Amino acid sequence: MLQPELKLRRDKIRALMAQQEIDAALITCNVNLIYTYGRVVSGYLYLPLNAPARLFIKRPNNIEGEHIHPIRKPEQLPDLLKECGLPLPAKLMLEGDELAYTEYTRLAACFPEATVVNGTPLIRKARSVKTSIELEMFRRSGIAHTKAYEQIPTVYKPGMTDRQLSIEIERLMRLEGCLGIFRTFGQSMEIFMGSLLAGDNATAPAPYDFALGGEGLDPSLPIGANGALLQPGQSLMVDMGGNFNGYMGDMSRVFSIGKLSEKAYAAHQTCLEIQEAVVEKAKPGAVCEDLYNTAIDLVTKAGFADYFMGAGQKAKFIGHGIGLEINEAPVLAPRMKQELEPGMVFALEPKIVLPGVGPLGIENSWAVTAEGVEKLTLCKEEIIEM
Amino acid sequence: MLQPELKLRRDKIRALMAQQEIDAALITCNVNLIYTYGRVVSGYLYLPLNAPARLFIKRPNNIEGEHIHPIRKPEQLPDLLKECGLPLPAKLMLEGDELAYTEYTRLAACFPEATVVNGTPLIRKARSVKTSIELEMFRRSGIAHTKAYEQIPTVYKPGMTDRQLSIEIERLMRLEGCLGIFRTFGQSMEIFMGSLLAGDNATAPAPYDFALGGEGLDPSLPIGANGALLQPGQSLMVDMGGNFNGYMGDMSRVFSIGKLSEKAYAAHQTCLEIQEAVVEKAKPGAVCEDLYNTAIDLVTKAGFADYFMGAGQKAKFIGHGIGLEINEAPVLAPRMKQELEPGMVFALEPKIVLPGVGPLGIENSWAVTAEGVEKLTLCKEEIIEM
Repeated sequence: MLQPELKLRRDKIRALMAQQEIDAALITCNVNLIYTYGRVVSGYLYLPLNAPARLFIKRPNNIEGEHIHPIRKPEQLPDLLKECGLPLPAKLMLEGDELAYTEYTRLAACFPEATVVNGTPLIRKARSVKTSIELEMFRRSGIAHTKAYEQIPTVYKPGMTDRQLSIEIERLMRLEGCLGIFRTFGQSMEIFMGSLLAGDNATAPAPYDFALGGEGLDPSLPIGANGALLQPGQSLMVDMGGNFNGYMGDMSRVFSIGKLSEKAYAAHQTCLEIQEAVVEKAKPGAVCEDLYNTAIDLVTKAGFADYFMGAGQKAKFIGHGIGLEINEAPVLAPRMKQELEPGMVFALEPKIVLPGVGPLGIENSWAVTAEGVEKLTLCKEEIIEM
Repeated sequence: MLQPELKLRRDKIRALMAQQEIDAALITCNVNLIYTYGRVVSGYLYLPLNAPARLFIKRPNNIEGEHIHPIRKPEQLPDLLKECGLPLPAKLMLEGDELAYTEYTRLAACFPEATVVNGTPLIRKARSVKTSIELEMFRRSGIAHTKAYEQIPTVYKPGMTDRQLSIEIERLMRLEGCLGIFRTFGQSMEIFMGSLLAGDNATAPAPYDFALGGEGLDPSLPIGANGALLQPGQSLMVDMGGNFNGYMGDMSRVFSIGKLSEKAYAAHQTCLEIQEAVVEKAKPGAVCEDLYNTAIDLVTKAGFADYFMGAGQKAKFIGHGIGLEINEAPVLAPRMKQELEPGMVFALEPKIVLPGVGPLGIENSWAVTAEGVEKLTLCKEEIIEM
């Protein structure tokens, strides 16, 4: 990662720190190190408000340079900062929503004179508005994601289970460069590479806060494909995480085994119309809850409200910010007064689950521009018959 | 999961709680819910010392039964406990090494009268000694893992990169039932399904605390395969996470592209001898640091100490407990006075990295029995030429 880009990102965080009179941030969680240092290391990035950042590194042992110092344990930080000629912070921020309780208290105890505050919301706010380099990474990721999805019909064979088809799609994603790992914010969300939901398995509620559920293959990971045979008349939705360079692109597409019922095509069309209506309103200044309500109004008029965003259990959002993690700000949900800003990137996923058929709908990733939004995921959007 | 098994696990935790006079545990992290409730849910398992456990559940919305209660937010817990006729705890334990700082403090604030302590070490201690059902799950997982590895030579094609071969092996693992997800303890360890390290990429140091490193494919995930062409004269090591049912079996095997140098075969043989010597001593009462020192003595005598457990950067352990996470107790490392107990399961991984050749050595998963250890991963152990 080039220094000017890292400086830009660090300065976005510093601007928010200044508003809260925070003197320094101590950053040690992987995604925040990717954001502020450009790669994962084991160590601490110390980000003062008014001085260059310092990296205190445990591993790997082959990184050297200006403002980079080896460290064994965080208790060395105060002395190392003094050696660098840096004052100890009066107000320090730590990653309070991400660090484990014992790790946070250990780090806070290294600075007994400091007021320690939770910096996670602030860092996530900075991360929610992407730089032009981050947007370019999303565009590249969208192209690779699209290329993988376009090959899906070539790996389908009649008589497959949802699990078998999912495995072949995972392979396509990996061959196009997907790193595989699926990063989420918060300890309770987890999934392998993404999900393939076919038929009534899409009605199965899951413990996780994803848009749709699925029974999964094992009680230790109850999400996604459940091993059932793919059957004629079923729809299936592919929703694999598009992590090709650290940024979690998000795209869902629907396929059918033979023809579907008329109602299924109507439901799918409704989701495309919701996407169109929301995208029409999505621009800087648009309020997230208004976008959500636009979707609810349309799906209610179309008569599919009971099946929108899940059958028995429903997701209470139609879209979510994406970035280094799949669940970033903003969230397109009820009571969210947040306004869109240029540089925000979000996934919009109006989805309907029809019992007896399966999941319908669409998901694309969008970047907010000066005037509207730019689509980052480019596969065709109709139901593809296999 | 059957109730008697869950009761057995909960009682293992309760026995340790009694020693510290802890009245109740509040469990909400996924792996600990799998352990104590048998599956992932979004919610809280409240485990009193002297009364049946109660599950307070947010999602999924289709779980009902005795001692199961819906909940929206943790602030409802005190009232819900009173409705159940349960007293509020005087001493409560939370998952302090796993919960985020803000989540821990939020839960603690729900019980303002209670003394709140970190329960993670205690739960991990209970989890470190497996039940007979957990051991059986490890055995089943070892069989599937072995079946996948035995097919590796069939997917190798000359001219492949390490990345391409890794993708085909990931697919074999998935087809044999691997769930894919790789669970670790601590926020800083992460990897996709596992690693394939070939040639000098095995000398690349990584930020993570795995036995070996590798440059990886992207700075956002600097571990494992780096996309280099597989070359004659190179060794490669496959080390994929064997998660087939929640339990993280661990096995590494070495393959060669054509013949290797004499020194490489000698290094591999040294690792097999280290395994034999450590396994000979591994039984209830054996001290972890003694097992580590046994390995160091042997590798030093054999003249490979400089290359043991990494070339430029070395792992400071030769083995680690495994379970629902890849890094559990016990750890076979210097200064670890912990003794092996029947029911513990660990991976033993003596590995040597030879610059110019690649990684050599072995890794198997072992269960501690009454008299010794039982091998859980059963592939042949010599270098397989491809």
